[in-house]
Amino acid sequence: MQSLRTILEAIARGDLSPREAVATSLDAIDTLDGTIHAFTARADRETVLQRAEQADGPLAGIAVGVKDIFDTHDLVTAYGSPIYAGHRPAADAAIVAMLRNAGASIAGKTVTTEFAFFQPGPTVNPHDHAHTPGGSSSGSVAAIAAGMIPAALGTQTGGSVIRPAAFCGVAGYKPGFRLVPTVGSKTFSWSLDTTGFFAATVDDVAHFAALATGRALDPAPADPAKLRIGLYRTSVWNEAEKSMRSAVEHAAAAAQRAGATVIEIEEPDELAAAREIHSTVQNYEAHLALGHELRCHADKLSPTLLACLERGALITPDAYDSARTTARRARKRTTALFEQVDILLTPSAPGPAPRGLDTTGVPLFNKLWTLTGNPCVNVPGLKNAENLPLGVQIVSRFARDHVALAAGKWLEMVL
Amino acid sequence: MQSLRTILEAIARGDLSPREAVATSLDAIDTLDGTIHAFTARADRETVLQRAEQADGPLAGIAVGVKDIFDTHDLVTAYGSPIYAGHRPAADAAIVAMLRNAGASIAGKTVTTEFAFFQPGPTVNPHDHAHTPGGSSSGSVAAIAAGMIPAALGTQTGGSVIRPAAFCGVAGYKPGFRLVPTVGSKTFSWSLDTTGFFAATVDDVAHFAALATGRALDPAPADPAKLRIGLYRTSVWNEAEKSMRSAVEHAAAAAQRAGATVIEIEEPDELAAAREIHSTVQNYEAHLALGHELRCHADKLSPTLLACLERGALITPDAYDSARTTARRARKRTTALFEQVDILLTPSAPGPAPRGLDTTGVPLFNKLWTLTGNPCVNVPGLKNAENLPLGVQIVSRFARDHVALAAGKWLEMVL
Repeated sequence: MQSLRTILEAIARGDLSPREAVATSLDAIDTLDGTIHAFTARADRETVLQRAEQADGPLAGIAVGVKDIFDTHDLVTAYGSPIYAGHRPAADAAIVAMLRNAGASIAGKTVTTEFAFFQPGPTVNPHDHAHTPGGSSSGSVAAIAAGMIPAALGTQTGGSVIRPAAFCGVAGYKPGFRLVPTVGSKTFSWSLDTTGFFAATVDDVAHFAALATGRALDPAPADPAKLRIGLYRTSVWNEAEKSMRSAVEHAAAAAQRAGATVIEIEEPDELAAAREIHSTVQNYEAHLALGHELRCHADKLSPTLLACLERGALITPDAYDSARTTARRARKRTTALFEQVDILLTPSAPGPAPRGLDTTGVPLFNKLWTLTGNPCVNVPGLKNAENLPLGVQIVSRFARDHVALAAGKWLEMVL
Repeated sequence: MQSLRTILEAIARGDLSPREAVATSLDAIDTLDGTIHAFTARADRETVLQRAEQADGPLAGIAVGVKDIFDTHDLVTAYGSPIYAGHRPAADAAIVAMLRNAGASIAGKTVTTEFAFFQPGPTVNPHDHAHTPGGSSSGSVAAIAAGMIPAALGTQTGGSVIRPAAFCGVAGYKPGFRLVPTVGSKTFSWSLDTTGFFAATVDDVAHFAALATGRALDPAPADPAKLRIGLYRTSVWNEAEKSMRSAVEHAAAAAQRAGATVIEIEEPDELAAAREIHSTVQNYEAHLALGHELRCHADKLSPTLLACLERGALITPDAYDSARTTARRARKRTTALFEQVDILLTPSAPGPAPRGLDTTGVPLFNKLWTLTGNPCVNVPGLKNAENLPLGVQIVSRFARDHVALAAGKWLEMVL
């Protein structure tokens, strides 16, 4: 994989120019994407290289893949839907403008499932092409895992940052809710949609997020002597495969051996209850957010999405309001958990990437934290017996994104 | 003015067809808009009338003016900015699709200030053409006040629903934060932007919002015997003109005589503090939300907006985070106020519409409630010595929108 920090250090030393760094990424895309199918639209090579030469921000030399759910004024943005084939938005999404301001090169748009829901695109998992890369940020994670680019953007409404990162063995960071703007990404659920970041390692993704946002998101690795880890098996632990349960327990044991404190945390009732209402919030909002598409282009929606939106249309405002109340209670209860521990350690997914390209796997271990809005990090590095990646997830207190990232950096060294 | 409820009742009785009702509105626009300048784009007359004939939702027969900050797939959407002259979005905003699903007719797009900030459009105040209609939802309120249409959409980031409603003597309703989707409106500040409704009276606007959203927003007028009103002069009371201070006190006295309980409420420190940080939240978010425009089209931004975005770019993430913390404290403290009273009664604006078309007035009495996210209603009906409208504002507890609307319905009968 291409390491963002390694590239930036080489540029800082003068061993590499931003243009050369970006050219390396574009060459890798040329070589590999015919097999991986991570990109839906590519920026013009010479334009990108010329801009990279002139760029002077902290991300100069970094080729970024932008999930095709974010608007780009100079690249087709189709949101994974035939409705928007050939669509050219008038403006860049906020985070895209932020990346350009920081000197990054937008290498192209990466495959998203249809409107970032479940209908997959053509992307394969670089670790085994017969397996899904996960979704909805499929192209972004695959492009990093295959070594095409050092950084990419995603979004998470259910589990679309952490799960594909886990399936492809890359680092994924879902910031706390509304820390990073979603402006200019296609809305599915305004209470849940969250902009996220991908890179090869937690160290790389923290550096990427810090430079993209200007925020203090690149802390030193956590000091194990001060790190209290909550081993959080969740109320759905038995729905995780054995390999995943072992991976989480292995990570906890390794952390403890390396000096961290590990405490078992039972899932509070308020959080178990919140698991049940994520789809109420999501589907109610989706049928309104995609109201135009449902009204004017229902024939071009996948059966999966159409069924979701039709379920959403049957949810009453009262049921939705009640779900929001359940979510608020869960948020409060989650905050209280972090009186006891600094982070929670929990599965990133039920197991490794499932075989087949028809589904992108299930967001069982992610959607709770999208609903509560807590920061999450996928720590890669473990594998199952078939050599497929297994990710473990770190969750921190709201507005303590740096705590999750510091713990993730430390844990990836330990693993 | 055209009353939404009166029109719908006439249609229900069979005295009027939806097509005739909409034709009346379109005729009024033809007659009046050459003077008022409320519309930026008009829907094709025959298309609108044919659709009205076929419409079967609860808003069939209602011609709606849509603030030109909301995307419409069939009408130019320019956000009040030359950058977007001639822009045709790919999809309708969520609330526009909701209105169409409810059978409403989109009569046209109404003038907004530039990106719903302060740079005014050409609209005049129908009560005195030498005065501003207020902003940013200038065209929507003027079109209702002039009697062109019975209903319109607006948005509020500072005071852009309540203030212009007060200046033009119409009812304005700013729902609680995120009750109504903003999806497909041009984002200025994602923590503040709020979709709002306008109609001739509070009774009309409640009925409009209820039919547009499918929510229980059309309650019976409040029972005065059970209504506890907090007379909320605010910590900036002395910045209101005498006519406005008198109007609020007059409304409180009238409510008390009519049987309501009136209690004086001092502004808590947490709310006074929150007044100071609205612009921190707004400007920080605006410089990111309009990052593309600032990056690629700075020469086409007004000096006022450019200065705002440049101020926003200087705000550190720490200062912004600290402002968000202040806002959270204010929200909690506001909720506590509503243990004592059902609603707050406070000015809608510092006075009547100022003379001149160069500014849209100040949102001094509005932006606090946009920041806290509480529901607000402008109750029209009072006037100053020069016969210009004066509005009083009702604020209710978060998620108690119906309480503000019920109180507003009752108060407008009393006044």
